[in-house]
Amino acid sequence: MKLSNLSPEKAREMIRKGEWDRPTAGLSNGYIQANLVVLPKEMAYDFLVFCQRNPKPCPVLDVTDVNAYHPPSVAPQADLRTDLPKYLVYRNGKKTEERTDLTDVWTEDMVGFLLGCSFTFEQALLENDIPIRHIEEGLNVPMFKTNLSCQPAGKFHGPMVVSMRPMKSNDVIRSIQVTSRFPSVHGAPVHIGDPETIGINDLQSPDFGDAVPIKEDEVPVFWACGVTPQAIAMHMKPKLMLTHAPGHMFITDQKNEAFGVL
Amino acid sequence: MKLSNLSPEKAREMIRKGEWDRPTAGLSNGYIQANLVVLPKEMAYDFLVFCQRNPKPCPVLDVTDVNAYHPPSVAPQADLRTDLPKYLVYRNGKKTEERTDLTDVWTEDMVGFLLGCSFTFEQALLENDIPIRHIEEGLNVPMFKTNLSCQPAGKFHGPMVVSMRPMKSNDVIRSIQVTSRFPSVHGAPVHIGDPETIGINDLQSPDFGDAVPIKEDEVPVFWACGVTPQAIAMHMKPKLMLTHAPGHMFITDQKNEAFGVL
Repeated sequence: MKLSNLSPEKAREMIRKGEWDRPTAGLSNGYIQANLVVLPKEMAYDFLVFCQRNPKPCPVLDVTDVNAYHPPSVAPQADLRTDLPKYLVYRNGKKTEERTDLTDVWTEDMVGFLLGCSFTFEQALLENDIPIRHIEEGLNVPMFKTNLSCQPAGKFHGPMVVSMRPMKSNDVIRSIQVTSRFPSVHGAPVHIGDPETIGINDLQSPDFGDAVPIKEDEVPVFWACGVTPQAIAMHMKPKLMLTHAPGHMFITDQKNEAFGVL
Repeated sequence: MKLSNLSPEKAREMIRKGEWDRPTAGLSNGYIQANLVVLPKEMAYDFLVFCQRNPKPCPVLDVTDVNAYHPPSVAPQADLRTDLPKYLVYRNGKKTEERTDLTDVWTEDMVGFLLGCSFTFEQALLENDIPIRHIEEGLNVPMFKTNLSCQPAGKFHGPMVVSMRPMKSNDVIRSIQVTSRFPSVHGAPVHIGDPETIGINDLQSPDFGDAVPIKEDEVPVFWACGVTPQAIAMHMKPKLMLTHAPGHMFITDQKNEAFGVL
């Protein structure tokens, strides 16, 4: 059976059994994959308000209950401690460990958040024959800190991080239409064109991810990026914070198309 | 100056000065109006998770900070304690008072939530020449408890409440398109056609609001309703809960169209 055709349940089972510890791109195609952030309960309310106020960079797909490890809306049978291929452990804002499960470290006072990721809208772009440079080049998407401030909430504040995809100008309009359909996975771009307008001086020096080549007839298009909430939470140096490892996402039971608003 | 053309700022000023204590329909046309729910901080996290899990009935537009009375995203200059024409005070789940301001009762440990209301999508329907029966008849929209369960969060659980608007079948498709553009104010309908499918036995006996006449060639169309979170919060009999009085909404600085995703 092709990995792209695995049901989300089977894919998670394979991961849980330790049979898959690589990135999840290409697994269970068509299903929403999500970023994971696990924070102490005492930070959870402010984090959720922050996400509510900044839905483009921080689209919350699900929140666990206290003492529960399944996401009740998007995959009620799953276990977020074991069903992702790789996790990172941050203590006091510093990465201290990579793990393949969180069973020993996810304590009772923590809450898990699943946040939309760009895989969903990239899939939609590809289906509309809009090429994606970093995928063509086998690179990570370039990400930049901007001068766009997030609306603060409690102690959470900071700049919006964006991801950039260059494309021909006649693909830009279609890319806005296509991604507007998916407000719960970052939605429409936040900026097109001149990077300096949003405080980016050099497209070849991303703050996260890899630089990608931009051709002369191409326009850079910027989307709000799910790195924003992680970067902002980390900045607060929580005693313990758990996340997925980059690219090693949680595969939900929800189809991409189920999150299209039109 | 016509009241429909008042800026939101001027309309709120008029209300704050006690010069307007009537319903807000028709004031500052084109701007989003919102439901208000004020709850003790200790209930706020579960309430916000509940809303996150049930975005169709509970579209959160804004949340106040603790010890603040302005909605930072949708009207940072406003004061939610004075800028609505009429409020209700509930103590232990029972309505005890109607007031025109909350200055004395909104204590430091409370949080205000603004939730999207149907005025926005009704305006969009009218602009598409889809008539709205309860407006034609000068009645309140009929609302019904359904057999659709909300996804619970903490102690918050209960059935979804829906509002019903009858229309000709050739208007139904357009009404779905038009309201799908506004996911942050209830979005697309949750059901069209047979009311019994969602547990409604008699369209002439609504649980809230008024019954409206339905013509023979009309189809009932049901939208998730903002009464849902209020009804569910009230069911928990919080010591103190403050809300707007029905129809006496908060007028935001945001245009309806700003919330259209496409």
